[in-house]
Amino acid sequence: MTQPSPLPLYPHRHLLGIKGLSPLDIELLLDRADAAVALSRQSEKKSSVLRGRTQINLFYEASTRTQSSFELAGKRLGADVMNMSVASSSAKKGETLLDTAVTLNAMRPDILVIRHAAAGAAALLAQKVGCSVVNAGDGAHEHPTQALLDALTIRRARGRIHGLTVAICGDILHSRVARSNIILLNAMGARVRVVAPSTLLPSGIAQMGVEPFTRLEEGIAGADVVMMLRLQRERMAGTFVPSTREYFRYFGLDAKKLKAAAPDALVMHPGPMNRGVEIASEVADGPQSMIQEQVEMGVAVRMAVMEALLDPRRDAEGAKP
Amino acid sequence: MTQPSPLPLYPHRHLLGIKGLSPLDIELLLDRADAAVALSRQSEKKSSVLRGRTQINLFYEASTRTQSSFELAGKRLGADVMNMSVASSSAKKGETLLDTAVTLNAMRPDILVIRHAAAGAAALLAQKVGCSVVNAGDGAHEHPTQALLDALTIRRARGRIHGLTVAICGDILHSRVARSNIILLNAMGARVRVVAPSTLLPSGIAQMGVEPFTRLEEGIAGADVVMMLRLQRERMAGTFVPSTREYFRYFGLDAKKLKAAAPDALVMHPGPMNRGVEIASEVADGPQSMIQEQVEMGVAVRMAVMEALLDPRRDAEGAKP
Amino acid sequence: MTQPSPLPLYPHRHLLGIKGLSPLDIELLLDRADAAVALSRQSEKKSSVLRGRTQINLFYEASTRTQSSFELAGKRLGADVMNMSVASSSAKKGETLLDTAVTLNAMRPDILVIRHAAAGAAALLAQKVGCSVVNAGDGAHEHPTQALLDALTIRRARGRIHGLTVAICGDILHSRVARSNIILLNAMGARVRVVAPSTLLPSGIAQMGVEPFTRLEEGIAGADVVMMLRLQRERMAGTFVPSTREYFRYFGLDAKKLKAAAPDALVMHPGPMNRGVEIASEVADGPQSMIQEQVEMGVAVRMAVMEALLDPRRDAEGAKP
Repeated sequence: MTQPSPLPLYPHRHLLGIKGLSPLDIELLLDRADAAVALSRQSEKKSSVLRGRTQINLFYEASTRTQSSFELAGKRLGADVMNMSVASSSAKKGETLLDTAVTLNAMRPDILVIRHAAAGAAALLAQKVGCSVVNAGDGAHEHPTQALLDALTIRRARGRIHGLTVAICGDILHSRVARSNIILLNAMGARVRVVAPSTLLPSGIAQMGVEPFTRLEEGIAGADVVMMLRLQRERMAGTFVPSTREYFRYFGLDAKKLKAAAPDALVMHPGPMNRGVEIASEVADGPQSMIQEQVEMGVAVRMAVMEALLDPRRDAEGAKP
Repeated sequence: MTQPSPLPLYPHRHLLGIKGLSPLDIELLLDRADAAVALSRQSEKKSSVLRGRTQINLFYEASTRTQSSFELAGKRLGADVMNMSVASSSAKKGETLLDTAVTLNAMRPDILVIRHAAAGAAALLAQKVGCSVVNAGDGAHEHPTQALLDALTIRRARGRIHGLTVAICGDILHSRVARSNIILLNAMGARVRVVAPSTLLPSGIAQMGVEPFTRLEEGIAGADVVMMLRLQRERMAGTFVPSTREYFRYFGLDAKKLKAAAPDALVMHPGPMNRGVEIASEVADGPQSMIQEQVEMGVAVRMAVMEALLDPRRDAEGAKP
Repeated sequence: MTQPSPLPLYPHRHLLGIKGLSPLDIELLLDRADAAVALSRQSEKKSSVLRGRTQINLFYEASTRTQSSFELAGKRLGADVMNMSVASSSAKKGETLLDTAVTLNAMRPDILVIRHAAAGAAALLAQKVGCSVVNAGDGAHEHPTQALLDALTIRRARGRIHGLTVAICGDILHSRVARSNIILLNAMGARVRVVAPSTLLPSGIAQMGVEPFTRLEEGIAGADVVMMLRLQRERMAGTFVPSTREYFRYFGLDAKKLKAAAPDALVMHPGPMNRGVEIASEVADGPQSMIQEQVEMGVAVRMAVMEALLDPRRDAEGAKP
């Protein structure tokens, strides 16, 4: 893959969250990802940047698209990729996450991609292993590659992120996607709104630098980007769970409500979608939908992240401590 | 892999079924497959024809041999192969087949291999994705690579298919293997018989260009090839289900009944076998059995199909529209 | 990978057990494994020794570390590696182990790695297939690569195995790890003790050339190596099952009991550990623990074994018949 110059000044050997990345870090990762998009659109979509490197995907939560995306990203960079299926793993025999991670680490991987239901799992691992850790989603904490792929999608469609108004709509309370996006979009100078029923808004949301709304049309009024979140009923123990029909009526995005946004507003969703719950098919499959573009950008962003973490020139070029 | 010449004039970018393939298409695919057999018998069984290409195996029904066969075929051609385990996929989160396929398509695969319980699933996908689709079995509709590997097995053993008498025996009603084989064998000029209890024969079977029999010895009398099908009791809801003991007595192939066929008749089975139900071990493991040969030909045929679909010279050489 | 010279005189094309290996076979495999350790510690940890070779991992029992270890070993040697998930395999459709193995064999693999609950499964397969078979654990019989990685760990830490006193502690009765280690350590000239409650000692243990103990402190007194085994309660049907608390009190290794061993005794465990049952965390994570080292040696030993089995020079150099 052709290298963008100057080199990303990626400050850590891990990607645990968007928090801690500078706007320049983010821009340079997105530049690298643009090059990865070009590679993946060739018929021979293969680089040898990570040839002989070992990537382990350790997924404690099932995920079609995220695990697949990391797997293809690694393979296209020439890495040896191994998926750890948790169902068939020693988890059954009672081994702890840390023992599993330390065991895998002893096999000398270069990158450990981890998804886990507990917030902080990736950071905990990063302290215990000798390889790069990429957080592929830890509880309600962060999902940094999702925010990066969303940013790449926006930047490619609009040429910039700075100054855009982005409305993130849905279950803000339980969403690591919302959290990582809020941090990234704020860092890049977007105006961020969140839209949700009041029971699905975190207390203290205003301190995150966002403007909260509890009515969808108001929240997306004039917005350049409308990001819908997946309604994750399985995470709502202890909170009021709306019926899907009721939720769609007030918070589902259909063509009529979308008219409140800017005329050419981008519609985004991290997938998998609940059609007819948080989003109508007419919008999901409509001309403003960026949903498939997001998936494509996902592979490219993961290629860029893993390449940047392992780039031998990174350390030589004066990365921050 | 050494290329057979002339080039296969494969008419589509997908392989959805045997229906629509010309006899020449089939012959040229089998020529390619012969070359793939030679490659797989070397110690370094590796080509770089599909280097940098992405193959995704999307199996909604479990299958040891078909999925493995496609996986090894892709790897031996140098492709990056990704298996989508449906059990751990977004299917659980309620995502539809089409959303899953469109999502995978956005990751820019070159080939999507699909097995699904619904007839027409592969054709539906082919309309929605930008890559080549290979049908690895869709409901009771078609299983084209099985028919091609059976044809390759016969052609290698007998030097031709034209003019041979082939008896397909068992659960014709529910079998995509039977359907694809009937179409291929008819196209190639074989005489095709089907043998089954009358409840397991489709109505209107005679219009498919086959001769139906309801007694095994009569159906295989003088046949050059005896293809036994797997009794799939799980697919028989709503039809009369014979006991396995009763089935074996009347429709199971044992050494005594096999004497009715031509003296050196080939015995075939797509696997996995129910020993003692549709076939006796003395026959399955006997000198006329081609069952292991069929498995080997399976890898080769899948290599040939994927290579032909992605051959850059295909379009240049005036393939049919 | 740099080749050690002279070449391993590996006597068989299979690795079914430690039994049958000569001390020289073992030493030469460990020499090869030392080279594999060096390769895996490079950033480009990749050889092309097995390029174009096909390795199939057929695991009928789940195992994080053994299957992963074989998978990474094969990939680092350049092989095409395919995992057969038994849960999604034809086992469900009633296919026997032998039919599955014979089917896989027809796909022309070079190496079949098998784990199975039945003692003798690997040897049975080896008679039926045309490729090399590696036993990754068969019932209570053998687990040869575990014994080899333990030996490599000891040899690297102490420079030799001959003359050391090794105490194997725990559920000797059900342990294939114990069995393979006893055979190897005896062959290499170590003094072997086994320590277990009398109900977990096989009758006739003394004939295996080991000294049995039923009290931990006595058994490890002065030992150079203390190998703890996993308490496998699921295998104990029909025998007296101790409570874990009771077991830990008498047979769990903690810092206090460890003082009975030689001052710098190596502490080993094949994993996954039951912390607080057979081993205390203070010991498992302590300075004498070799547990992570063992995992690293596991990948290296498996690389060495597979390379030796397929080394084209092996036959040319006068291997034993």
